[in-house]
Amino acid sequence: MRDVRADVVVIGAGLAGLSAARSLVADGSEVVVLEARDRVGGRTLNHPIGAEKIVEVGGQWVGPGQDRVLAVIRELGLETFDTYTDGRNLFEHGGRLRAYRGEIPRVNPAALLDVQLALTRLERMARRVTAERPWAAPSAPAWDSQTVASWTRRHMRTTLGRALIGLACEAVWAADAADVSLLHFLAYASSGGGLQRLISTDGGAQQSRIVGGSQRIALELADRLGDVVMTEEPVSEIEHGKNVRVIARTVTVEARRVIVAVSPALAGRLRYSPALPARRDQLTQRTPNGSVIKCMAVYDEPFWRSEGLSGQLTSDSGPVKVVFDNSPPDGSPGVLLGFLEGNQARALGRLDAGRRRSAVVGCFVRFFGERAARPLEYIEKDWSADEWTRGCYGAFVPPNTWSVFGDALREPIGPIHWAGAETAIVWMG
Amino acid sequence: MRDVRADVVVIGAGLAGLSAARSLVADGSEVVVLEARDRVGGRTLNHPIGAEKIVEVGGQWVGPGQDRVLAVIRELGLETFDTYTDGRNLFEHGGRLRAYRGEIPRVNPAALLDVQLALTRLERMARRVTAERPWAAPSAPAWDSQTVASWTRRHMRTTLGRALIGLACEAVWAADAADVSLLHFLAYASSGGGLQRLISTDGGAQQSRIVGGSQRIALELADRLGDVVMTEEPVSEIEHGKNVRVIARTVTVEARRVIVAVSPALAGRLRYSPALPARRDQLTQRTPNGSVIKCMAVYDEPFWRSEGLSGQLTSDSGPVKVVFDNSPPDGSPGVLLGFLEGNQARALGRLDAGRRRSAVVGCFVRFFGERAARPLEYIEKDWSADEWTRGCYGAFVPPNTWSVFGDALREPIGPIHWAGAETAIVWMG
Repeated sequence: MRDVRADVVVIGAGLAGLSAARSLVADGSEVVVLEARDRVGGRTLNHPIGAEKIVEVGGQWVGPGQDRVLAVIRELGLETFDTYTDGRNLFEHGGRLRAYRGEIPRVNPAALLDVQLALTRLERMARRVTAERPWAAPSAPAWDSQTVASWTRRHMRTTLGRALIGLACEAVWAADAADVSLLHFLAYASSGGGLQRLISTDGGAQQSRIVGGSQRIALELADRLGDVVMTEEPVSEIEHGKNVRVIARTVTVEARRVIVAVSPALAGRLRYSPALPARRDQLTQRTPNGSVIKCMAVYDEPFWRSEGLSGQLTSDSGPVKVVFDNSPPDGSPGVLLGFLEGNQARALGRLDAGRRRSAVVGCFVRFFGERAARPLEYIEKDWSADEWTRGCYGAFVPPNTWSVFGDALREPIGPIHWAGAETAIVWMG
Repeated sequence: MRDVRADVVVIGAGLAGLSAARSLVADGSEVVVLEARDRVGGRTLNHPIGAEKIVEVGGQWVGPGQDRVLAVIRELGLETFDTYTDGRNLFEHGGRLRAYRGEIPRVNPAALLDVQLALTRLERMARRVTAERPWAAPSAPAWDSQTVASWTRRHMRTTLGRALIGLACEAVWAADAADVSLLHFLAYASSGGGLQRLISTDGGAQQSRIVGGSQRIALELADRLGDVVMTEEPVSEIEHGKNVRVIARTVTVEARRVIVAVSPALAGRLRYSPALPARRDQLTQRTPNGSVIKCMAVYDEPFWRSEGLSGQLTSDSGPVKVVFDNSPPDGSPGVLLGFLEGNQARALGRLDAGRRRSAVVGCFVRFFGERAARPLEYIEKDWSADEWTRGCYGAFVPPNTWSVFGDALREPIGPIHWAGAETAIVWMG
């Protein structure tokens, strides 16, 4: 066991950990970053597809309002490009496929009205919730005592309308409306500048992509930090008092502070000596990560484009319910990206790889025709099976958690500080 | 690091782990039990109060239908005695204290009718749910998409009626109606022989106590097992393939099988090599333990008895909402037991010990008069602050968990088997 000293030790070389390290180094601190994996980037990960091109099997989009990451991207000299949205989108409902332009599929007017009224009502409720202190909202106990599914069952009139709100939950948290507390739904919407923005492409969270792949942010940050970033160093224990002593695989780091930059569920799996207070520990028992398998099929060209299709699809039946054109900036090769989210990921995650591939490619064929049947390559990543992530896109919050344990999410404990997507106040997650 | 070989290694020397070890030894297997603490008993723990008497700061009651533990108690030569129930019980509602006899407090008829109709309806639903396979119930997805709080808001008419169902959740799981999935509520009721039985004293889960304290079961079992029970051996890692290799603090055990006899949340904190499948891991992210602080005040005698009171109380305001007479079999000294459960435990767990004691003893005074104001001793145990338990009475199950991840609770993974209160099919928990 090698002993190292630093001012601050950071656990996790994802975007949060590396950004924290960068700021601290800029301020003159000595920093060590401990990463369990043999790579940096956390929930961002590039996957080569030949000819020096990549696709991203993890988080990939940036959008307006995400000012911090956009600033980092600029500082690192990285470039962004627009998600492909030309042409008509597809909407599958009740087994029928329809093309539409713009944000709103042509579904029956009763369902559209139902969704519109629900969104208006939810937006109004969300304005009374802050991402900093969801528990302080006047109706927090009531809103936190129910799932989003309970709210839609009570306040919406159409099955399709409810399904669309369900799809929003799946798209944002890779969890179902039955998983998520209504208060979390509202707090998250509030943190992202409104519900509409969370689920939109143009002007929304899916607006832009990064040339060379989103993992480049982490790779560039780590490159500039140099050998203070130590990979293959899973941490087992944090001893803390006035200072901290962090025990990893081959190295022990003594420092004045530790920043734990992993999701709450994983943070809860470290051993702390002395043991952490009940409220922090119990919080980590009830902030599960979502369930998503990101699936991509690579074709020699994006053939749907010549048919006037954007490649974007929404389906109410699945198992793939959301599809994007995820081709590289120059449109070659063609890449269809399909998400298995929430209960779909949980169900299909149990199949063997061949059957899962058949189910996903089968969806692409149903949506885009026979040319989708034989991809050059099929790529998938089940983040809930990844030992050092255990679920994406991030944590969601079940009922009676924000209002009871919420303040333990960000509050430091002595020299232990918490970072990571889940602690964000703007674009929480 | 000392190397040991065995047929089976058991993790956790609570009742489940020790019982498993006992059966295996009886069948001629070589067994090692690894326990993190310096004691056996898990969630049962005796606390001496002088004169060779004890109170239990953990689980303490046994009742009809719990046949396995009753058989073990008999085999070990231990004796049981009845929970004290003579005299009138107290019910506090809206700031008023009323005495009553029997099971049902004299509250207003509308609330009683409301509760009775709700219980009838819930019992009927519970008959369609089995504890073995809650996910197989015809309405499992709908029942699992909502909290108990959502159900009572929709189907009950009185505030008091809803509060009483809430109290039942607090009494059974140390969690709130807003925490618990309706499907879990039904599955648990089904496993315990009906809702009424879960919350009853006579003929119910609180009927009997064990002479010498409930921890004696574990102490006697461990005594008979001898030095195969190794304490102060927290396990950090389980390597598994055809066999297992379990790495504890000072010992490594190679065996053909491992039985992990701790709650799912704690089982999820061990490291497994190779990593466990997604569905098991994500299950352990969403089976949080309840929140309870068990509080007792010791008096020279059980003064409430001479006033014709049983010591049993239910309150809708709290913070102590449930009280029992917990005096030793001979009634000396007098002991009042009060529970802080669910959100009350979470709120009062944050106070310093002195203020919490004042709040609890203040309740005893409100319920039983000024003689309760100066106990000889005040004893409390916050199980959510205990590193090797992290919450009692056990795990509860939030929405969308049983129906999606349920089968991962008990299913072995190669040589890894799961035990512990949460895996029980009869009297789950």
